[in-house]
Amino acid sequence: MFESAELGHQISKERYDAEVPPLREKLLSAQYELVKRHQFSAIILIGGVDGAGKGETINILNEWMDPRHIQTTAFAMDDADLHGRPEMWRYWKMLPPNRKIGLFAGSWYSQPITQRAYGQIKNAELDRDLELIRGFERMLTDEGVLLLKFWFHLSKDRQKRRLKALSRDERTAWRVGELEWKHFELYDEFAAASVRALRETSTGNAPWTIVEGTDRRYRELTVGTSVLGALEARLQRQADAPVANTRAAPLIPALDGKNVLSALDYSTRMPREEYERELEEKQGRLNLLTRRPRFKQHSVVVVFEGSDAAGKGGAVRRLTRALDARQYQVIPIAAPTDEERARPYLWRFWRHLPERGRFTVFDRSWYGRVLVERVEGYCSESDWMRAYTEINDFEEQLVQNHTIVVKIWLQITPEEQLRRFEERKNTPFKQHKITEDDWRNRAKADEYTQAVCDMIDRTSTELAPWNLIPADDKLSARIRVLDVIHRNIREALE
Amino acid sequence: MFESAELGHQISKERYDAEVPPLREKLLSAQYELVKRHQFSAIILIGGVDGAGKGETINILNEWMDPRHIQTTAFAMDDADLHGRPEMWRYWKMLPPNRKIGLFAGSWYSQPITQRAYGQIKNAELDRDLELIRGFERMLTDEGVLLLKFWFHLSKDRQKRRLKALSRDERTAWRVGELEWKHFELYDEFAAASVRALRETSTGNAPWTIVEGTDRRYRELTVGTSVLGALEARLQRQADAPVANTRAAPLIPALDGKNVLSALDYSTRMPREEYERELEEKQGRLNLLTRRPRFKQHSVVVVFEGSDAAGKGGAVRRLTRALDARQYQVIPIAAPTDEERARPYLWRFWRHLPERGRFTVFDRSWYGRVLVERVEGYCSESDWMRAYTEINDFEEQLVQNHTIVVKIWLQITPEEQLRRFEERKNTPFKQHKITEDDWRNRAKADEYTQAVCDMIDRTSTELAPWNLIPADDKLSARIRVLDVIHRNIREALE
Repeated sequence: MFESAELGHQISKERYDAEVPPLREKLLSAQYELVKRHQFSAIILIGGVDGAGKGETINILNEWMDPRHIQTTAFAMDDADLHGRPEMWRYWKMLPPNRKIGLFAGSWYSQPITQRAYGQIKNAELDRDLELIRGFERMLTDEGVLLLKFWFHLSKDRQKRRLKALSRDERTAWRVGELEWKHFELYDEFAAASVRALRETSTGNAPWTIVEGTDRRYRELTVGTSVLGALEARLQRQADAPVANTRAAPLIPALDGKNVLSALDYSTRMPREEYERELEEKQGRLNLLTRRPRFKQHSVVVVFEGSDAAGKGGAVRRLTRALDARQYQVIPIAAPTDEERARPYLWRFWRHLPERGRFTVFDRSWYGRVLVERVEGYCSESDWMRAYTEINDFEEQLVQNHTIVVKIWLQITPEEQLRRFEERKNTPFKQHKITEDDWRNRAKADEYTQAVCDMIDRTSTELAPWNLIPADDKLSARIRVLDVIHRNIREALE
Repeated sequence: MFESAELGHQISKERYDAEVPPLREKLLSAQYELVKRHQFSAIILIGGVDGAGKGETINILNEWMDPRHIQTTAFAMDDADLHGRPEMWRYWKMLPPNRKIGLFAGSWYSQPITQRAYGQIKNAELDRDLELIRGFERMLTDEGVLLLKFWFHLSKDRQKRRLKALSRDERTAWRVGELEWKHFELYDEFAAASVRALRETSTGNAPWTIVEGTDRRYRELTVGTSVLGALEARLQRQADAPVANTRAAPLIPALDGKNVLSALDYSTRMPREEYERELEEKQGRLNLLTRRPRFKQHSVVVVFEGSDAAGKGGAVRRLTRALDARQYQVIPIAAPTDEERARPYLWRFWRHLPERGRFTVFDRSWYGRVLVERVEGYCSESDWMRAYTEINDFEEQLVQNHTIVVKIWLQITPEEQLRRFEERKNTPFKQHKITEDDWRNRAKADEYTQAVCDMIDRTSTELAPWNLIPADDKLSARIRVLDVIHRNIREALE
């Protein structure tokens, strides 16, 4: 894989001096075209071996383009800021908004490759990480991000000479420390892990470009030309036509009309005295559970979804009452802010992930993508079809990272819903809870039911199953919510 | 000051049970009024001694109101996340957006009071901190935030009994650790520091309410009633009329027409060969400076302001070229995002403050408040008049926190500006750099000059002086920019 990058590529000073000025002009021009007229962002990853000129290349790109519209981030593999969130959180956090270019020194490849080179993980685990990365990158490009990946390579002999040269010069000696020499000793292990990673992730939507790092002029001109080509092609494509969506086979409802929602038992009724007693007991029990020392090794994400007027708000309040207010946040999901709209849709959820020892309660969630956005046509079919996989990948990362994910669907019957809508309409104190949207959604009940059933079929996984709770009786539903959350946390702690 | 809060206040169960239901209903109703119809946020601080029921009160407010529109934050005085930013950064970061209520457990009072109680700072330093707090709170309320401050008090004897009771009960024993007992030993020192802090900061716009913490029903009802009263009064006031602005004495230009801008010498011209040589030398020198080990104890904020077409972008690029791209970010200031618009105007700058060892370069800045916003009438006169003080306070915090603040004003003559505008208009490659706004601003040159001179008079402080650079000659101006930045950093390191 690295053969072509050990040929001793170089570019003469004359050629460099002749080619750079028009290249810069075109790069700047393409960048402004992006800034002024387009709704996508670009991410340029610069990875590779130490001493191969990654830093200089990042500097030169910042010089050739307008740095005001570039976000450069150097990622340290330091877990301090994660506070228990998944590794990918640090990259999500730094995703550039539309119209900006994100220049990443270090990336989601750094940790798996390093761990493999050090022998901390096996190939099977590396492959699992790479699978996750493929899904992540596929999501990025599907969301419209222009993703460019450059790998800077040096042969073993070249790297040794380069590190020595850097050490000798007092202006650059600081760049070669113990860690760099330690990595050099592991050159072969790093090479093997890198080849595997590059091979597994050089996909059609996000291929790698391997750049020999020996000659400064060669690598700068290669990266610059490559970035320009990709930017221009993308700008041209945007100008031509929107990307065609591949139409998947349509999802159809079960032909006998049975579904998981209609199969629920809506007849339970809990007397109020029993409810009051149970509520106090269940809240106390949950509270004690969250005080166990082991709880501090986990975080909890609770997702509340359900029919309109199913009692999500009330259930959320009975849950939070059991917790110390300092250990949770409730995130109500409504229309995204403009900062959120300018990034892949999961970004707005990643930004609220809890630290270790804390809860985030989502009142509506990322499932909006496959529910309201699907039914109302706010996104294309291919967007919501791919969302099932993206969501499963997202939740898998959470669970593997010791986050307890509890997904609750509260369902009421159409008759009960009508009764509650009428009650809200006629009670001054409750009128703010009913809007035109609610009536609109009700009119599309069949489409919503279909969307919910598809969602459950496709995202109720063994790692993060859906809990379907019939909620015609508010009181018993609230108790069941507390039960479900308690059970999930208890099982995780044991 | 605490006399009234040691009287053994209590509320009977009957009265509590009778008053809470209507109180809850009104609180919820006021909260929805805020959520649906208003453009302000509320911050409720809960401070005071350990064991006085702060946590329970926060929980009850979350239960009485809709927690989906409350942001509860418990602040730990842990410097880990600051990475060298000013202490106030953690509070700025958590300011709620309009229409939300921020419930703060712990606040900007915690650190000064604790440090004073432990004898780590003297009264004079405490007073300086309190002065800063008064300015901060004045800014918040001027920006429209409804700020409510509650102090939970217990007499020494009551606190001892309370801590013992908490320790005995296994459900609450976790809440009383060594730290709480240590603080109890320092009860008198904490009381003295708190009284001083409360006295100095109980201002007309943000008075303290002292609450005796002995009786749960008393403190809950007191806080609930107080929050309701403040919310309702504010909602009523908003409905009645906008807040009247006190009109300050108008600022007038110097009567003889002399000003700091016209007094600059615009005649310098630097030959290109000299520039090339100087540029390389100055960039290298600056680069070496930022590699010194001591530099890691500082951060740098560079503010670029200046006439339109004065060459800010070019100067920024010559600066960033001298730095490692991984150690700086350039923040171009254009229209605020909606998340920024929903908070006090300085929030959008606080969020980009650099960590230790890093640069943030602002291409335009918070000075927009007293320049374009003043001249174009985007904010009221009282808004931009108070901004001078707010800005000086902001920069003072940066400087006291080892941030090096370099403020650069690039000025060109009206003749040179016209020449550059025409050149931009007539060069295809530069047309994106000239807009209607530029011509509009030029037509108001006198008003802008006046605003710039006032800005310099009022914000060129000994801690963060303005550097005025004549820029008719781009080359010499760029060199002077590098000189100014180098000098400021060098002086800070020595």
